[in-house]
Amino acid sequence: MKSLVVHELLGRTVSLFGEKEIVSGTRRLTYRDFHERTCRLASSLKRLGIKKGTVVGVLDANTHRYLELHYALSMVGAVIHTLNFRLPGEDLVYTMVHAGDEWICLSDLFIQSVSPVVSRFKNWIIMSDDETLKIQGAEQCLSHEDLVRDGEFLDGQEKIEENDIYSIFYTTGTTGRPKGIRYRHRDILLGSLQLCHHLALHQTGGRIESSDVLMPLIPFFHIHGWGTVFFGPYMGSKMVLPGRATPSEQVELMKREGVTWLNMVPTQLHMLLEIEDFGNVKIVTGGSALPTGLARRALSRGVRYSLIYGGSDQLGASISVAPEGMTLGTEYSEVWELLRTRMRPIPMVDISIRDEGGNQLPHDGKTIGEIWVSSPWLPEGYYNDPERSREAYPPKHPGWFKTGDLGSFSPDGWLSVADRQKDAVKSGGEWIMTTVLEAILSEHPKVSIAAVIPVPDERWGERPLAIIKPRETVSETELRSFMEEKVLEGRIARFWIPDRFVLVEDIPITSAGKLNKELLRRSYR
Amino acid sequence: MKSLVVHELLGRTVSLFGEKEIVSGTRRLTYRDFHERTCRLASSLKRLGIKKGTVVGVLDANTHRYLELHYALSMVGAVIHTLNFRLPGEDLVYTMVHAGDEWICLSDLFIQSVSPVVSRFKNWIIMSDDETLKIQGAEQCLSHEDLVRDGEFLDGQEKIEENDIYSIFYTTGTTGRPKGIRYRHRDILLGSLQLCHHLALHQTGGRIESSDVLMPLIPFFHIHGWGTVFFGPYMGSKMVLPGRATPSEQVELMKREGVTWLNMVPTQLHMLLEIEDFGNVKIVTGGSALPTGLARRALSRGVRYSLIYGGSDQLGASISVAPEGMTLGTEYSEVWELLRTRMRPIPMVDISIRDEGGNQLPHDGKTIGEIWVSSPWLPEGYYNDPERSREAYPPKHPGWFKTGDLGSFSPDGWLSVADRQKDAVKSGGEWIMTTVLEAILSEHPKVSIAAVIPVPDERWGERPLAIIKPRETVSETELRSFMEEKVLEGRIARFWIPDRFVLVEDIPITSAGKLNKELLRRSYR
Repeated sequence: MKSLVVHELLGRTVSLFGEKEIVSGTRRLTYRDFHERTCRLASSLKRLGIKKGTVVGVLDANTHRYLELHYALSMVGAVIHTLNFRLPGEDLVYTMVHAGDEWICLSDLFIQSVSPVVSRFKNWIIMSDDETLKIQGAEQCLSHEDLVRDGEFLDGQEKIEENDIYSIFYTTGTTGRPKGIRYRHRDILLGSLQLCHHLALHQTGGRIESSDVLMPLIPFFHIHGWGTVFFGPYMGSKMVLPGRATPSEQVELMKREGVTWLNMVPTQLHMLLEIEDFGNVKIVTGGSALPTGLARRALSRGVRYSLIYGGSDQLGASISVAPEGMTLGTEYSEVWELLRTRMRPIPMVDISIRDEGGNQLPHDGKTIGEIWVSSPWLPEGYYNDPERSREAYPPKHPGWFKTGDLGSFSPDGWLSVADRQKDAVKSGGEWIMTTVLEAILSEHPKVSIAAVIPVPDERWGERPLAIIKPRETVSETELRSFMEEKVLEGRIARFWIPDRFVLVEDIPITSAGKLNKELLRRSYR
Repeated sequence: MKSLVVHELLGRTVSLFGEKEIVSGTRRLTYRDFHERTCRLASSLKRLGIKKGTVVGVLDANTHRYLELHYALSMVGAVIHTLNFRLPGEDLVYTMVHAGDEWICLSDLFIQSVSPVVSRFKNWIIMSDDETLKIQGAEQCLSHEDLVRDGEFLDGQEKIEENDIYSIFYTTGTTGRPKGIRYRHRDILLGSLQLCHHLALHQTGGRIESSDVLMPLIPFFHIHGWGTVFFGPYMGSKMVLPGRATPSEQVELMKREGVTWLNMVPTQLHMLLEIEDFGNVKIVTGGSALPTGLARRALSRGVRYSLIYGGSDQLGASISVAPEGMTLGTEYSEVWELLRTRMRPIPMVDISIRDEGGNQLPHDGKTIGEIWVSSPWLPEGYYNDPERSREAYPPKHPGWFKTGDLGSFSPDGWLSVADRQKDAVKSGGEWIMTTVLEAILSEHPKVSIAAVIPVPDERWGERPLAIIKPRETVSETELRSFMEEKVLEGRIARFWIPDRFVLVEDIPITSAGKLNKELLRRSYR
């Protein structure tokens, strides 16, 4: 490749790993096939008038066609807008309008969900094996497979620069409309590749090497499947794309294709562990804390893990790795506890713990403050959103992003992420970390999932409330005495014990697979 | 770091690995000490008027002061000119004048060698423990240690951009004056870091990880010690700098400091293997072919190797790695033979085999042609040398560099480097690869070093001549029948057998540690 432009990495991949496979449902492609299809698709997209700067929305699960669009749109210089299929319909349309989508590429998996809004967008491309599939009410409706078939096999059609915008996607805050973030080619490439470089340079559960077989369970709309869209082909690794497979189908696919490495949120891990055959893989997980109980269960099944921390507004920031000299055993031990709870900034990322005024707090491993992040791939702000940009990317501190998360940083460079600032409980002026309480509660054998939220309290300002989805009947007394034990073990202070324990049948999850604390807070206010 | 500027990587290194050590002779520094010394040095350099674009020559072996200058000059935006102490005096001065060196930083190790030219340069900084050391005849002569002591501990003094020039160094062709190449900050960083990423992503003898202890034996004037100047601190690895240690002192240092990873040319490997205690390390070697005999001897001592191919005019291009599914054993085997003979382009590098007209030849693993290289860090040409720039960086093929080396590329992406185009023998219109003949001859138990060169021949155009430095007395008949055996084994064609075998007491080596074939060709014409 001559510059840090996304599709330029394919040249080396094809010449070195041309026969390696991409498996997508029942479809098998080699990287050579994939490259040819992508070039043909690009030439057709160009013929349609899609060019540098055109914004194209894509609504699909993780499939080969979605992967093709990631590279074909790069070839013509268009901006890929990775649409979040977990957003409420109204928010989804908001993002399509806000980003300025001129074309929508729609997978047959999601045709139902967009039918109410078809008339609002003019140009549609249907991603399906069935080339005749159309949607009702669309002014123009083409087929992805037709475009591939009718396109010419040309390479390097357009002059794309690494500072051109490559993609736009939206982060779902718990309040207000989603915020859009646009990344340049070089940002997305560097940010994604540094993840796999970090995972290759260190001993860690999710250690990666080029011979791994990757299955990204993180949807591509989450930072392009946490970078796998790029670092898979970059390493020349076989990729297995699950589409909308159910957990048990995912496990079947893993076994059949020899998958060795996956990414997923803890909720997905929880679901996979329900399936007997799942185990003996390396995973990277994040998006929310990995509870001890879940970590132990995973390890007992041969699942080796790394914890990742980052976000749509900054890309990857840190991943847990073992301290030097520690070996990863097969039993839950100190090193696995460390891999669950603290991380190293990935190479090229600087992290700093700051107070509300932006002053650096001591990196002593104890002081808790807001986590600030700096890296070469940080955007300048949210797209067309100057006010919220100023809040998160403070002009007084150029090159820094305020994550809104609380954490501490040790003198020898370990980051512990404690809580979302707005999720933590401030009781009598002291922070109580709800993630810690949730982790401890999830260790109780009768607890399936636990969420802890702050509720207003006249005396203390706020107090913690625990919401429990039990495995089997459990009493508040049992839970309380379990927490008392943990106080005696020194893991929490007595004042951290929740005032109330509420048992529920289910706990709401956000579109990102996290506990929906905003909804819980509203319900229990 | 906010952009791809060299010294910006130190921030993360200090906050994560502040207590890791840099060992330089008898001196021990932590990265924290190193960072403070570097910042103080930079502030003094700035006070002296050294600023963006000032060219500063440095003549030193691999020491901590040289490492400091690599980062301090970055902080003030100056261009570091890494002077080649193996150049003949006249050529060295030529490079200093051609690059426009305004200051010379001179190690006490090299004071003698520059005394004839002191008066030609005005500003000198002496790098020595002895702060009072001066050189005769210098108009201005300061001490590195004084500058460190008197400087202020400031950080981020200047606004440096990643497209600013970071360094200049010269490549020594066998004809004509040395050619200068200037690299930008981002080129040097990306090019260097991709080496360690490649070594971390694959199974290979020189596999690297952050916990390795690095000892660069490649002098810093060779592409900054083949990138170790940057990827050592980037990984936060302990670094052991050998200064001008003899091979036996190097081995002592290795043992004492727990060195696990080194780089070196095959000649250095040859010398280290003479020392009993040397072994059980990982190495990256290159610059010339690794003969089978040497590879076997190394392996029998627990030295695991990777072969690297690249050059000053392009940075790193490829490194040998094991094919997937092959395990590196402890015995010489097929996989070690592959690691000795063929390579994968490093990530972000494209390689192509071309004919004299620049047309791509088949990548069939057999067709031999010139190796062309493309990468994001390729310079535009040689510094102030338009004619030779046009030859090597052809304007008709922008983004490509003609290496002048012959090789082949297999359909599944393996590069075999055969020979320098001008070193190969063209006999009756067919290429004879002198490196192959040298490798085979070095397998003979009575041969220490072998060089093969083309000599003019009336009938065939050219014919190979073998020049042998024997271990013990050996006859031409013995060598000839040894070669005949190799013909029967299918390793070479019969017409490859040299017409003559000349026994000599020593074989001349270039400043880069390679066989000096130019000199040999002149002697035997």
